[in-house]
Amino acid sequence: MSARFDFEVVRVDPSGARLGRLTTAHGVVDTPAFMPVATHGAVKGVAPEQLGALGATILLANAYHLAQRPGVETVQALGGLHALMGWDGPLLSDSGGFQVMSLGALVRVDDDGVHYRSHVDGRAGHLAPEDAIAVQEALGVDIAMSLDECVPAAAPREQVVRAVARTSAWAERGLAARAATALFGIVQGGLDPALRAESARTLTALGFDGYAVGGLSVGEPPEATGRVAAATVTLLPAARPRYLMGVGTPRDLLRFAAMGYDLFDCVLPTRNARNGTLFTRQGKVMIRNAAHARDARPVEDGCPCYTCTRFSRGALRHLVLAREMLGAQLATLHNLHFYLHLMRELRAALAEGSFPARAAAAAGAWA
Amino acid sequence: MSARFDFEVVRVDPSGARLGRLTTAHGVVDTPAFMPVATHGAVKGVAPEQLGALGATILLANAYHLAQRPGVETVQALGGLHALMGWDGPLLSDSGGFQVMSLGALVRVDDDGVHYRSHVDGRAGHLAPEDAIAVQEALGVDIAMSLDECVPAAAPREQVVRAVARTSAWAERGLAARAATALFGIVQGGLDPALRAESARTLTALGFDGYAVGGLSVGEPPEATGRVAAATVTLLPAARPRYLMGVGTPRDLLRFAAMGYDLFDCVLPTRNARNGTLFTRQGKVMIRNAAHARDARPVEDGCPCYTCTRFSRGALRHLVLAREMLGAQLATLHNLHFYLHLMRELRAALAEGSFPARAAAAAGAWA
Repeated sequence: MSARFDFEVVRVDPSGARLGRLTTAHGVVDTPAFMPVATHGAVKGVAPEQLGALGATILLANAYHLAQRPGVETVQALGGLHALMGWDGPLLSDSGGFQVMSLGALVRVDDDGVHYRSHVDGRAGHLAPEDAIAVQEALGVDIAMSLDECVPAAAPREQVVRAVARTSAWAERGLAARAATALFGIVQGGLDPALRAESARTLTALGFDGYAVGGLSVGEPPEATGRVAAATVTLLPAARPRYLMGVGTPRDLLRFAAMGYDLFDCVLPTRNARNGTLFTRQGKVMIRNAAHARDARPVEDGCPCYTCTRFSRGALRHLVLAREMLGAQLATLHNLHFYLHLMRELRAALAEGSFPARAAAAAGAWA
Repeated sequence: MSARFDFEVVRVDPSGARLGRLTTAHGVVDTPAFMPVATHGAVKGVAPEQLGALGATILLANAYHLAQRPGVETVQALGGLHALMGWDGPLLSDSGGFQVMSLGALVRVDDDGVHYRSHVDGRAGHLAPEDAIAVQEALGVDIAMSLDECVPAAAPREQVVRAVARTSAWAERGLAARAATALFGIVQGGLDPALRAESARTLTALGFDGYAVGGLSVGEPPEATGRVAAATVTLLPAARPRYLMGVGTPRDLLRFAAMGYDLFDCVLPTRNARNGTLFTRQGKVMIRNAAHARDARPVEDGCPCYTCTRFSRGALRHLVLAREMLGAQLATLHNLHFYLHLMRELRAALAEGSFPARAAAAAGAWA
């Protein structure tokens, strides 16, 4: 375990949800926590000072993207990823396994890692599990992820078996290569309980700073996500942080936190915002709809975010339809406020023993 | 003159530059002032609270664009343009004459106004001079502009003669139609001193709240801009604000302020920012250039703006090249800071009698 990383379970709720505290060299993260996504080193449309004001405590960057552009040596020359981003709080990076797959950059996977064709310049590249750790340590993130092989939900069983074996082997190689950064292993295994259990067993025997559950939210039915997430969490060490990758809706955050997951990331609040979909306690507001054109009410009554205190639904609709950057920015501010406020309420509920009631009130229709 | 509008010349510098104070229902504007451009009701990429923090005191919107989308009745239903924009400071709107021309939406001009084809939905429309005032009053701006006929720099003399006559006739009709909003007349006349003089004489005889000089910065040589602007300003009443439309570079702001112009607007700081061109005292910084890739210095040493205090040149270059919204936002914040700081220094120089020295120091290479 890295010297600059600690996790404390502050309180375990009867539901199974945990109130926790994650300490890194760049600050403390109260958990359960949602990590806004800063793929290229920026949360789209939001400045770091705004993220801080919204209550974000930890951001997620993608090592694969940053290694392609601007490149690891460039990030180092600029003082590391924290300096590049203008963010001095904790940072977690994903290693690249999922991104290579989701970007269609994957050429092939073999036992020695991932062969890809860069989505930026088309150049062929190879990422070995040791490289993935070296890249993330060079970026200077607080938490790195092991290289994993992520397969589609519909992958045949033999492909999932091979991916689990490789992910375990790569995890071991990555752990051996790790110098200082905290490192999480990633449990794979598709929708197969036995494979998930095998993956979790192997990784926990290796001893990581934390454990992620990957390969979910990749196209499987929501019921399957829940089943696998629930079964897998029981196989992870209680004393270590548990990160459910790529999840999810506000409802997902409540239900997976209740299972005992501590960390979450998802592009939903930011990507949906840019598409004009706003999260509110009453459900989704599709701001492009003509019904909002002359609606002088805010996106969400009583919401204290900058967008809702200053702009009407009609104004936001106009800005979004006119493709004004400010429209995307304001929608993103609201959605991130909704998510981060929900997480605050969730933690407050866990602290005072009122979970899930207080969190459900903040989630409204999403509870 | 409108009851909610006043202008006071506080001090006239030996150079001819004036320190002034413009009072509107939505607040005071110390002049010379630069108006950031909010064509569709938003300064691209910048929230109103940020504009206030940058020192913007008055914004420019475009009545033609807003009448097309979201439409005047929609703006009214949303509480007026100030409410739509989330900006409670002074607003000036352009009437649409220039925009119809510059957008290629112009079908034809006749004595009764402008016939256009909407750049949004292709629908045919007609804007009479009275309509232009009615639209701007319905938007609720603090300062409206008369409808003018703006001709290209290369227009034949007979076209310029006709445009001056129409602009004068429309100014008179607009003035008669005006109910409450402060109204500026727009001097046209191309590059012809006699036509400019005729236009200025006619408009000043009508008696507007202020006077704009239009039809410059439309493709003519910079020397011609200076010659026409210098000759025209002497024909405008000293007690009324003088607005040089669509100007300009930091150098332009200094030289035209020295002629006695009080108000300026230009898309340069915001548009150039989105293209990766930054204004500094050392001149332009083209942030996309490879030379900046690993440059850990800020865009401008010693600049106190958010961008320069938090981000390196290399970081900004990365964000711009990765087409991250934040790159455009940060570049815009810096450029607006540069412009608005320059105007503050210009006013301070006029107030303390150190013009142009103090303003020139702020302008650096642009002086």
